[in-house]
Amino acid sequence: MDTVKYLLPEDRMPSAWYNIVADLPAPPPTVLHPGTGQPIGPADLAPLFPMALIQQEVSQERTIEIPEEVQAIYRQWRPTPLYRARRLEQALDTPAKIYYKYEGVSPAGSHKPNTAVAQAYYNKQEGVKRLVTETGAGQWGSALAMAGACFGLEVLVYMVKVSYQQKPYRRALMETYGARVVASPSEETNAGRAILAERPDSTGSLGIAISEAVEIAAQSEESKYALGSVLNHVLLHQTVIGEEALAQLEMAGDYPDIIVGCTGGGSNFAGCAFPFIGAKLRGGRDVRVIAVEPMACPSLTKGKYAYDFGDTAHLTPLVKMHTLGSTFVPPGFHAGGLRYHGMAPLVSHLLDLELIEAIAFQQLETFAAGVQFARTEGIVPAPEANHAVVGAIREALRCKEAGVSRTILFNLCGHGHFDMQAYTDYQAGKLHDYEYSAEDVAMALAGLPSVGN
Amino acid sequence: MDTVKYLLPEDRMPSAWYNIVADLPAPPPTVLHPGTGQPIGPADLAPLFPMALIQQEVSQERTIEIPEEVQAIYRQWRPTPLYRARRLEQALDTPAKIYYKYEGVSPAGSHKPNTAVAQAYYNKQEGVKRLVTETGAGQWGSALAMAGACFGLEVLVYMVKVSYQQKPYRRALMETYGARVVASPSEETNAGRAILAERPDSTGSLGIAISEAVEIAAQSEESKYALGSVLNHVLLHQTVIGEEALAQLEMAGDYPDIIVGCTGGGSNFAGCAFPFIGAKLRGGRDVRVIAVEPMACPSLTKGKYAYDFGDTAHLTPLVKMHTLGSTFVPPGFHAGGLRYHGMAPLVSHLLDLELIEAIAFQQLETFAAGVQFARTEGIVPAPEANHAVVGAIREALRCKEAGVSRTILFNLCGHGHFDMQAYTDYQAGKLHDYEYSAEDVAMALAGLPSVGN
Repeated sequence: MDTVKYLLPEDRMPSAWYNIVADLPAPPPTVLHPGTGQPIGPADLAPLFPMALIQQEVSQERTIEIPEEVQAIYRQWRPTPLYRARRLEQALDTPAKIYYKYEGVSPAGSHKPNTAVAQAYYNKQEGVKRLVTETGAGQWGSALAMAGACFGLEVLVYMVKVSYQQKPYRRALMETYGARVVASPSEETNAGRAILAERPDSTGSLGIAISEAVEIAAQSEESKYALGSVLNHVLLHQTVIGEEALAQLEMAGDYPDIIVGCTGGGSNFAGCAFPFIGAKLRGGRDVRVIAVEPMACPSLTKGKYAYDFGDTAHLTPLVKMHTLGSTFVPPGFHAGGLRYHGMAPLVSHLLDLELIEAIAFQQLETFAAGVQFARTEGIVPAPEANHAVVGAIREALRCKEAGVSRTILFNLCGHGHFDMQAYTDYQAGKLHDYEYSAEDVAMALAGLPSVGN
Repeated sequence: MDTVKYLLPEDRMPSAWYNIVADLPAPPPTVLHPGTGQPIGPADLAPLFPMALIQQEVSQERTIEIPEEVQAIYRQWRPTPLYRARRLEQALDTPAKIYYKYEGVSPAGSHKPNTAVAQAYYNKQEGVKRLVTETGAGQWGSALAMAGACFGLEVLVYMVKVSYQQKPYRRALMETYGARVVASPSEETNAGRAILAERPDSTGSLGIAISEAVEIAAQSEESKYALGSVLNHVLLHQTVIGEEALAQLEMAGDYPDIIVGCTGGGSNFAGCAFPFIGAKLRGGRDVRVIAVEPMACPSLTKGKYAYDFGDTAHLTPLVKMHTLGSTFVPPGFHAGGLRYHGMAPLVSHLLDLELIEAIAFQQLETFAAGVQFARTEGIVPAPEANHAVVGAIREALRCKEAGVSRTILFNLCGHGHFDMQAYTDYQAGKLHDYEYSAEDVAMALAGLPSVGN
């Protein structure tokens, strides 16, 4: 069976990111200062981010030009291929057409460099010397480490301790790029020390690691903070994925009826889907957009749409998002990149506007889908991406049952070469499904701030 | 600094492999039957290989068409990019121009699928049900597992025990593709049992694993053997690399003065270099071609050019090659793919004809080069590929010393995402250099067969 690949010529790589805010029927809720309850302004964010990124965070412009210096780095691996999954279609015996955009060809193996390179560039432009961030499974940290190396910036990464211990190879990748990696919670920050005082054996969480990184970044003018998902400007940078996919599907003479993506913080999902949703909002074709999340951390399907903190120590502004509560610590399932208590405010807003839908899957189903994908399409997906794969397979099988053909697009956001322990465990029967604890969520949600809610 | 990438349009992917035998000034030495001392014929190889591959092994034709079914799979990741290493050039402050061909974009992360897919195709065509092979570090085994999945063939891999134990993730990749992986030496074969009877704690070697795979493959008509390097047809399939590079350098308006490649069995080196050497032999431009090998297993620089067995149990035919002796077991350095006692007969023949030169590097130098490459170009090379990187850097620095510009091309045969433990050890100061044991080599060479020598 032929491989069908749609490659854009390099000169058709998008020269602008797409900002969906310009096309939304209702503006997204404002971001609030936790102390005053008032909308925050650029000055409030200035200790953490360079002004160019703050402007993007609040921009109303439909398109934002990608600086030539960022495009120059993107071109190392972009435009990324769009594939028709013919062998998977055949294995499923489905009348559906399945396309996937593959972001695993980047040097860090995922979509994360799309924003890491942009963030490193704008920080470098404004004289920043060091970027401080957190990472869970390590995809984001390694992307920022790579981007830092490109622009000569120091990178300091607070890595969730359980991943630091269990995933030494992502750490090794960051260190190979020259970054310093610290297990979180650490003794280096007030936030970390407070957690350790209470629970010396804490294995950490993304929310804790964010607190540490934000605290350190805010201490020095030469340091800024970088976040790998959730924020508007991060989602913006990822839209290069969907902009390319639009052009590639045009080459294929096709258009998606259904778009599927996996959601942790929301950035790869948004990056692929927003340009298509925008086209629809501007009068273009309708498209069903499905966010797939893990049953163990189901912020979109089981969380509350409310104002909450992005971190555990409550150092961040308040954003309205689907949240399981900022103190909720999800169980240790293998898709570390989907283990965040909240969801991008823009993705949450779109769910509220019924422009997208959401579904949660159990861990074992996602790995079964990943193995089937590997054996048919030859690429082993990251555990996070397996959520997109299982979502796409489910839709393709529904087409088969109904005897109708639909065009399905999903974003394969990264390869699983750093996640083979999870595949080993899966094949040895050692993985199991996780139920999130409804009680824990209820407790965490009881702690939602009064401001905004 | 701009990324400079040369991408061939898909319709310029080569449609034929290049067979250097047609252009050589002297034919390569014949392959001998170890019992009779007579040249072997196709019938002797038929228990191990399908006839189409045997014909390629002895072909005199300059070009051999790539079957459309193989091209269809190649197109998933081919043509692979050619990059100008501008950031590395800048870091070295060299007047040299450095280009690299990047094979790490394949789903298995290396050049190995180029031949794995072809071998699986021809076996499938001839009704074979199962492929049996060996693997060291696992690059070849995972490529064949992927290719087997594409064509619905079972794959059985004898994996050198030390790698089986220390590199569980390559094993997990093979198993995810559906292959069965057995630690070698095993109790499943006479060859394995004989080794274990003598040394129960043997951690194996490529030579032993080859013996096991050959033994099993020869037992059943439905099984054939597959080798990932060394043989003529394997080198042939890899020439798609160099054929693409020729066209890409033409796009760049450039031509290499120097080509560098790393050599274990010789296939990625040959794949990149042979098309350029062939062009020279047909009256084209001169080019220096440098094979880089590890000091711990220096078959080209310290081995003897003699008839020897390809395996430890002496089940294979005799080939004339640069060899350290079939019983030589190299120390456990990290570039597992370069840990073979012999060298491809064609590469050995070209060294003998002075069409190529060879140099050996110590392990620490190769990792230092790999880290420098990662921090400048953003891609972490496999430890094997670090040998090509250090060779290219050495030539670039010689250009700097001499104040001359040369165009250097090297093949970056795979990414290092499965090899991060080696980088961790390197950065922790735990790696060291290895001297091969001259005494062990002398002993192994004393055991060379009398036939042919």
